[in-house]
Amino acid sequence: MSFDQDYLNDIDTPAVLVDLDIAKANISRFQDYANAHGIKVRPHIKTHKLPLLAEIQLAAGATGITCQKISEAEAMVAGCAAIRDVLITYNIVGEQKLVRLRSLAEKVRLSVVADSAEVIDGLSQVFASSDRPLSVLVECNTGANRCGVASPRDADLLAARIAEAPGLIFGGLMTYPPAAGEAGVEAFMTEAKALIEARGIAVPVITSGGTPTMMHAADAPVATEYRPGTYVYNDRSLVARGSCGWKDCALTVVATVVSVPAKNRAIIDAGSKTLTSDLLGLTGYGHVLGRDDIVIDQLSEEHGRLVSDRPIDLRVGERVRIVPNHACVVTNMVDSLFVISGGNVALKRLSVSARGKVV
Amino acid sequence: MSFDQDYLNDIDTPAVLVDLDIAKANISRFQDYANAHGIKVRPHIKTHKLPLLAEIQLAAGATGITCQKISEAEAMVAGCAAIRDVLITYNIVGEQKLVRLRSLAEKVRLSVVADSAEVIDGLSQVFASSDRPLSVLVECNTGANRCGVASPRDADLLAARIAEAPGLIFGGLMTYPPAAGEAGVEAFMTEAKALIEARGIAVPVITSGGTPTMMHAADAPVATEYRPGTYVYNDRSLVARGSCGWKDCALTVVATVVSVPAKNRAIIDAGSKTLTSDLLGLTGYGHVLGRDDIVIDQLSEEHGRLVSDRPIDLRVGERVRIVPNHACVVTNMVDSLFVISGGNVALKRLSVSARGKVV
Repeated sequence: MSFDQDYLNDIDTPAVLVDLDIAKANISRFQDYANAHGIKVRPHIKTHKLPLLAEIQLAAGATGITCQKISEAEAMVAGCAAIRDVLITYNIVGEQKLVRLRSLAEKVRLSVVADSAEVIDGLSQVFASSDRPLSVLVECNTGANRCGVASPRDADLLAARIAEAPGLIFGGLMTYPPAAGEAGVEAFMTEAKALIEARGIAVPVITSGGTPTMMHAADAPVATEYRPGTYVYNDRSLVARGSCGWKDCALTVVATVVSVPAKNRAIIDAGSKTLTSDLLGLTGYGHVLGRDDIVIDQLSEEHGRLVSDRPIDLRVGERVRIVPNHACVVTNMVDSLFVISGGNVALKRLSVSARGKVV
Repeated sequence: MSFDQDYLNDIDTPAVLVDLDIAKANISRFQDYANAHGIKVRPHIKTHKLPLLAEIQLAAGATGITCQKISEAEAMVAGCAAIRDVLITYNIVGEQKLVRLRSLAEKVRLSVVADSAEVIDGLSQVFASSDRPLSVLVECNTGANRCGVASPRDADLLAARIAEAPGLIFGGLMTYPPAAGEAGVEAFMTEAKALIEARGIAVPVITSGGTPTMMHAADAPVATEYRPGTYVYNDRSLVARGSCGWKDCALTVVATVVSVPAKNRAIIDAGSKTLTSDLLGLTGYGHVLGRDDIVIDQLSEEHGRLVSDRPIDLRVGERVRIVPNHACVVTNMVDSLFVISGGNVALKRLSVSARGKVV
């Protein structure tokens, strides 16, 4: 990918750019794989936070969307009429959030997760008086060591608790798989499913996710649904893993060189307020397209430092285009971004509707 | 500092809290030091991004404010009539920004910096036709190895160029000091000043900055002005350096425990979208007040993982209060925050006016 698009000079920098053609190709690629294997796709919108992209994902065949927080789901539902089915993969705790959850459940088919009796009881208390029972999946820990019950036996106990709780229905099992990967998902979920079904409770959905291993989703055939997020844009972390190439990276950051203070060093106007400090195990804070020799070795809030073991060969005012380490966190830094498509001649500014939605 | 403030339960989490009493004490502490040493204070607003705090800093005796980007300065000036003097410590490059800069210069006394002929020439081109010449300081590299001219000789050459440029006046010398510290500032600036004055050009301001070494600002008596930012709130990085204690940390993040999936692990609803991934050389992503045993060892976007070598002893729904590693970047993550003061009984929600201003 070269950086010869003069029209980009009209954009003030730093700016986040999304190439819609690349994003659409990324969406189709996984949807095709999932269709071929009978897996439903429920994209995690945290990566794009844009109603436009959710609409494209749904039109391509997605079964619904995944959100992490209620405020994120509210923003997406408000911005996209096509969204009729939302899974919030988060323990919803506290009165303020439960009230909002009930209100949201009146607008779309809503599911949430739980990994403790406390969370289930809180949900039941609010939904007991509702006409529409809330679907609750049990979150399982299959290696991420974040949330999730530790064993199939614990999943079974919580499934039973949900099935008995007023206002709730048991929606299935959910995991975010790292470490043990698809093999770990298959083992845990197969055992949990058998235990729950032995009680006479159906397990309608088993949902797994994560872009890095998505093309191996079928290795865990017990799962019925997959929730990739980053796949829509890709990023440097996925190129480093061999999941994609630079040409598959739909999100880039355009920055301007503001200083060339030494032969091997240049400073750009994108710092951690745009690229973020996420390293994801990599060295450096992003990849300058067309310049494999450059390392972005240091970010402060508004400065990015580019170093090379060759002459840096950049001029003040010149623009560079960067694939960030982690696409999801970059979209959260900007109020708006630019969408390009159709041979890159049309530029459209879009508000990042679900940005900064942390509650 | 204990976490027994029941009124905080009314806030949905994660939330950013600013204790105004602590912030005022922090402001006074440095202003008193600076007054005693005849140093002007020009706080960097990147830490708080709030007109209210700028007003307090100016009322305490600050000579003006520092911003890093034009959009940041625009937001601050629009929100606080008391701001009459702004220094943007950044190379302003590109037509879009130069047009905005000229417009801003009509509203306040404005200064910027430059470290190259290209930047100076760009500024001159736009200000040559202005009634009000723009004050331009030369940025000097005294150890940070970010922007800045490399030698006093280079500073002298750019000072002469500014003095001759139509529409510009030479405003002095600026540095952000790391590495060589105040000794490095003193050596570089003394030499540069002598060279410039030998040409018959006055050096009205020599401005340095950075909270970590601010109580040693007087060790570089050549500097006339200091630009601390983080001092208003303090953070875990400054506690780690011994610059302050937990009781001096005005900004905290309130989070709710959403899962206690193992004996030594709990998960909170604040992740990198609130606390950020900034480590600043520390281990872990923040300090849980009152719990020295806890390490926040992992953040994903919406989850923070708390681990301890003792039983974690937290319940689902319980709240914790966290001092983040880096206060400045946290205020950039939220659209609004809560201000507490007066014995912590009054809560006021404030919009973070200059959040996300990257251009």
